[in-house]
Amino acid sequence: MREAMKKLISLDRERGVITHIAALLGWDQETYMPESGIDERAEQLAIVENLAHEKAVNPGIGELLNRLEGEKDLSGQEKAYLRVSRREYDKETKLPAGLVSEMARQTSLSQAAWVQARKNNDFKRFAPHLATMIRLNLEKASALNPGAPPYDVLLDLYEIGSTERSIADVFAVMKRDLVEILGAIRSRPQSDDSFLRRRVSPAAQARMSQYFMGALGFDKHRGRLDTAAHPFTTTLGRDDIRITTRYIEDYFPSSVFSTIHEAGHALYEMGLEVGPDYSGTRLADAASMAVHESQSRMWENIIGRSLPFWGAHYGHIVPMAEGALEGVALEDFYKGVNRVEASLIRTEADEVSYGLHVIARFELESALIKGDLAVEDLPGAWNDTMHQTLGVEVPDDRRGCLQDIHWSMGSFGYFPSYALGNLYAAQFWTAMKAQIPSLERSIAAGDCSPALNWLREKVHREAAALLPSELVLKATGSSLDPSHFTGYLRKKYSAIYGF
Amino acid sequence: MREAMKKLISLDRERGVITHIAALLGWDQETYMPESGIDERAEQLAIVENLAHEKAVNPGIGELLNRLEGEKDLSGQEKAYLRVSRREYDKETKLPAGLVSEMARQTSLSQAAWVQARKNNDFKRFAPHLATMIRLNLEKASALNPGAPPYDVLLDLYEIGSTERSIADVFAVMKRDLVEILGAIRSRPQSDDSFLRRRVSPAAQARMSQYFMGALGFDKHRGRLDTAAHPFTTTLGRDDIRITTRYIEDYFPSSVFSTIHEAGHALYEMGLEVGPDYSGTRLADAASMAVHESQSRMWENIIGRSLPFWGAHYGHIVPMAEGALEGVALEDFYKGVNRVEASLIRTEADEVSYGLHVIARFELESALIKGDLAVEDLPGAWNDTMHQTLGVEVPDDRRGCLQDIHWSMGSFGYFPSYALGNLYAAQFWTAMKAQIPSLERSIAAGDCSPALNWLREKVHREAAALLPSELVLKATGSSLDPSHFTGYLRKKYSAIYGF
Repeated sequence: MREAMKKLISLDRERGVITHIAALLGWDQETYMPESGIDERAEQLAIVENLAHEKAVNPGIGELLNRLEGEKDLSGQEKAYLRVSRREYDKETKLPAGLVSEMARQTSLSQAAWVQARKNNDFKRFAPHLATMIRLNLEKASALNPGAPPYDVLLDLYEIGSTERSIADVFAVMKRDLVEILGAIRSRPQSDDSFLRRRVSPAAQARMSQYFMGALGFDKHRGRLDTAAHPFTTTLGRDDIRITTRYIEDYFPSSVFSTIHEAGHALYEMGLEVGPDYSGTRLADAASMAVHESQSRMWENIIGRSLPFWGAHYGHIVPMAEGALEGVALEDFYKGVNRVEASLIRTEADEVSYGLHVIARFELESALIKGDLAVEDLPGAWNDTMHQTLGVEVPDDRRGCLQDIHWSMGSFGYFPSYALGNLYAAQFWTAMKAQIPSLERSIAAGDCSPALNWLREKVHREAAALLPSELVLKATGSSLDPSHFTGYLRKKYSAIYGF
Repeated sequence: MREAMKKLISLDRERGVITHIAALLGWDQETYMPESGIDERAEQLAIVENLAHEKAVNPGIGELLNRLEGEKDLSGQEKAYLRVSRREYDKETKLPAGLVSEMARQTSLSQAAWVQARKNNDFKRFAPHLATMIRLNLEKASALNPGAPPYDVLLDLYEIGSTERSIADVFAVMKRDLVEILGAIRSRPQSDDSFLRRRVSPAAQARMSQYFMGALGFDKHRGRLDTAAHPFTTTLGRDDIRITTRYIEDYFPSSVFSTIHEAGHALYEMGLEVGPDYSGTRLADAASMAVHESQSRMWENIIGRSLPFWGAHYGHIVPMAEGALEGVALEDFYKGVNRVEASLIRTEADEVSYGLHVIARFELESALIKGDLAVEDLPGAWNDTMHQTLGVEVPDDRRGCLQDIHWSMGSFGYFPSYALGNLYAAQFWTAMKAQIPSLERSIAAGDCSPALNWLREKVHREAAALLPSELVLKATGSSLDPSHFTGYLRKKYSAIYGF
């Protein structure tokens, strides 16, 4: 390998190791840190994050990139690595220092205001901060790519290569189909899921979580499960990937499915193997937020809420459930954990209505960024959209436009990733089933390894070497097509609800 | 405050915060890290330790110290802070970089060789590494203080202001008395402690540990308890001090007393309050290793193995012990946890024989450093010493001179701190009892706060502002006198064993 490439990799690896130190500080803060530790922890995080930033904007990286980009005879992997490195280097260096510190300061204020506003159902308290976050995001987009429409620039930060147009096209199809499926479900009798509210102790739920981590192929030498107020996955090292869950005593499916969801993220992180030359570099990062989400949703919903999966595992879970599932037939359990009901809160939404929550946010945030929607008109626009797409009436902003943290953090363009994740997952699933005829029989026999192996080979090992659109094309043979997702939903839910 | 002092404090604080990040990396490695995380964890630790070292040897600190040391009208606290800062700065900067890296490299090899040698009872495998560690320590002593006897320089690193002479003087008295007390105990019938081997589940032991942390006044908002293979205390932040223990199912006193021991260390760390100006600086460090050990031993042995203490708590512990203590009277339990028996292993030794283990190491390591004892003669010398002082026959080097990790890490001069800790603790105890006549009545009523408050005021709050010898004099009114310790032992054990 060229000396310059070796040097670039070495600088990149050191930066990567430092981000993992920051990840440990964050993980500990959410899991075990005693409460009085928070003040100094903020100082510790600031030191490590500044150090990681210094390493990322090292002008030596820019010089190495300039030199290497001019080289001939670069291998495919080298080209991919330079592309990823250039992209991240530009992202980190193009923002003026003044804007970066202003964003950090305003984000902190904005988040604090949002917490208060949500608590007190007081949108006016948050509105000026939201306006500031929009203004700063416009400045950010302009600094990164002055020629492009700002919302496109922001979308590209989360889903590389996407534009408002490309997302609007797939969302239009998805929206039409989701509304139709939701309508069909509403015309049918609702499933009973009252048994899911029976008490199961945290210790028993923890055993279930460990059971499912094992069933999915989670390598416990390279990761672990802990508890946190909000479940998350975090990478503390190339071989140290941790997930968290929480145990709600009168709703055990929460921990079961959040553990499967986070394990899906973790399996992806564990599978980002690009070979020894590039291990620990940005080439070994995830392809995108949406691809990451496709992995968690694949395991949580497509596999983890399927009848074959529960056919294999229900018999093991019933005795672990401390009597809560006694007398509950497999089919009723399956229907219970797949109950669809339009509701107000995105994070509690089922597979069908979830996409509509995301589409609403996509439409609203693009309008905010383009100036087509004024900040003070957001609550009304939100409530109208929820009424039109989900048929629900929003009683207050707390359960309306104040429910999500994202905009308060200045994350515009992030929401679409959640829905794109579902679309990618369903398209991967279609391809996987076509290529492995025995797939569902294996899952029904308790063996998830064919699914994991397919994802390892087709998705995980590509890591960041391909753009998400290239990855989908290569893995499935066709471009992103939302009909895989809506077709999957229609088939599954017509069987459950009988329409 | 002077600008230069503010600047010095600010540099010092940043260094301190970074050492806490390293402490988190270490804590996590010993508690929760999945096993495959170890390789990258070593890289992470190296990065953070290098950064802490860079901050500590910043030439700006040297310039500020030079300037401030010449100032007039320095307050007592300022003088103390400059003394501590100068000492640590010199220690970090006086060692040539070549020696530091050579020591790091050789220590790593030496520790690995020691692990193998101990496992295979093969002293010859370790001997050349021990010779290297001695040579490097001689170079280190010479670099730090070329005019002084090397072993004095090394002792001073752990117990500031101590010399071989000063320690030999107190150890001579202690040795004579310990041998005499041990002989008296041996002439009497042995206590029964077989009930301590009854099974108690880890969960029940964990509840006992939490109970005793509460009883001692451990602030659970500023710290926590976890499990680790080898119990330790570590400071992860000014308000984040963590202890660990381990649960041996057929010997629950191990976790009870190790938790009390580590809680003693943690209470000291939590009490190092030097006011807002110097919080987070080196002035808020412990006075010395031995003073630290005095705090753990005070709580574990002098208070934690006393009859008044168990009079208050035994009734709470019996129902937590899952039947293991049913039918065991308080007095028998008290005698059981204070059983004295000369044995081979220092870390398992009782209060009486422990000091003799330390004295043996002190005599042997000073002879090794002075060249009075050749490395190849260590096993024989060790076995002779153990025979003469403890009356035990060493069957192999694994249970002899290979049992401790310290010399393999190049820590010569460290062992005396353990015994000095016992001496300090007993002298503090004498003073505390004299100043608080109701002390033992409070402890017998379950209230340890008078003891903690005394330690807070007389020991903890002084932090590093006084040398250990100054601290003992100020807190107790007299210089270090080993007769407090041996008097305490004689009184306690003559009552238990009836001599």
